[in-house]
Amino acid sequence: MQRGNIIHDLRQRLAESLTPARYRHVLGVVEAAVRLARRFDADVLGAELAAWLHDLSREWPSDRLLAYMRDRQLDVPAAWLDAPILLHGPVAADIARVQYGVDDADVLNAVFYHTTGRPGMRPLEAVLFVADAIEPSRDYPGVDHLRALAESDLKAATLAALESTLRYALDRGFEMDASTVAARNELLKQARNKA
Amino acid sequence: MQRGNIIHDLRQRLAESLTPARYRHVLGVVEAAVRLARRFDADVLGAELAAWLHDLSREWPSDRLLAYMRDRQLDVPAAWLDAPILLHGPVAADIARVQYGVDDADVLNAVFYHTTGRPGMRPLEAVLFVADAIEPSRDYPGVDHLRALAESDLKAATLAALESTLRYALDRGFEMDASTVAARNELLKQARNKA
Repeated sequence: MQRGNIIHDLRQRLAESLTPARYRHVLGVVEAAVRLARRFDADVLGAELAAWLHDLSREWPSDRLLAYMRDRQLDVPAAWLDAPILLHGPVAADIARVQYGVDDADVLNAVFYHTTGRPGMRPLEAVLFVADAIEPSRDYPGVDHLRALAESDLKAATLAALESTLRYALDRGFEMDASTVAARNELLKQARNKA
Repeated sequence: MQRGNIIHDLRQRLAESLTPARYRHVLGVVEAAVRLARRFDADVLGAELAAWLHDLSREWPSDRLLAYMRDRQLDVPAAWLDAPILLHGPVAADIARVQYGVDDADVLNAVFYHTTGRPGMRPLEAVLFVADAIEPSRDYPGVDHLRALAESDLKAATLAALESTLRYALDRGFEMDASTVAARNELLKQARNKA
């Protein structure tokens, strides 16, 4: 299936299945991802496709996510099974592959890891991760600083988005994901070596 | 060597080798560790010994810590070699073993992991970790809350001390240690299951 046709299908599917607030969020991420991909010379249509895909199963209840994982025998970090909300990325990536024939590794990884990030993120993955953090309906301490960083420096914005994810987990008593911590440590080290 | 004699030796050695501020810190940790060990029914003399030992090599320069690690072929998490300050625990634990004949695993692990914590900490390890965070000369946001928790709940105080370590790393742009994150996640999960 052509990317343009997949996007056309997804737009309809999401408009019908997501709550209006979530659908608005997805539209915001699509717009932000396209803008960031242009700015930082990433694959623009790939970024748009990843953005349309990323929250496809975000509103599934935990038991449906877990059942999908079991049925499809998907492999994820063990800790994610204890926090099923983290499974909506891997499930969406799998749906992209099997229902839409998406085989672009960057698009699939961007969707898979969009909640946690991971070390060694490719530009397209960083674009989706940052777009998800700064789309217009997002409102949390530090979001304007993050939006400003995203004007000029994708790595700095990714680092700030990872830190905002970790700070949120600390403040709210949620577990911190090992991939998010490792991704932040990696970008910190790169920034230090560059300085 | 008897524990009492080791402590006698260490007191002299540290008074002569540490800066006065660091020596005062050690005295504070000793006092806090003994108090916590009594309160939470941990090995009191073991806690005192671990407290005397913990910062034995805290003022060594990085190259001396790294050289010691190399000479003794000590095994530590790979990330610690990039942040040599984390090596002062493992080096002190090794000195305890080879120079003083300490063979109590809880004492040695308490010293080894006193900067990061780790999942599955034994009570004596938690006692030293918390004592190090609350001794009287410590002054940082949240320390009074931590002191209050340490009056009644060792696990809650350990969780808060781990979170304070992680928050400090986030605020100051230091790397977050994977053991600290895993230890915090574990205690969070236990607290949630208990509630």
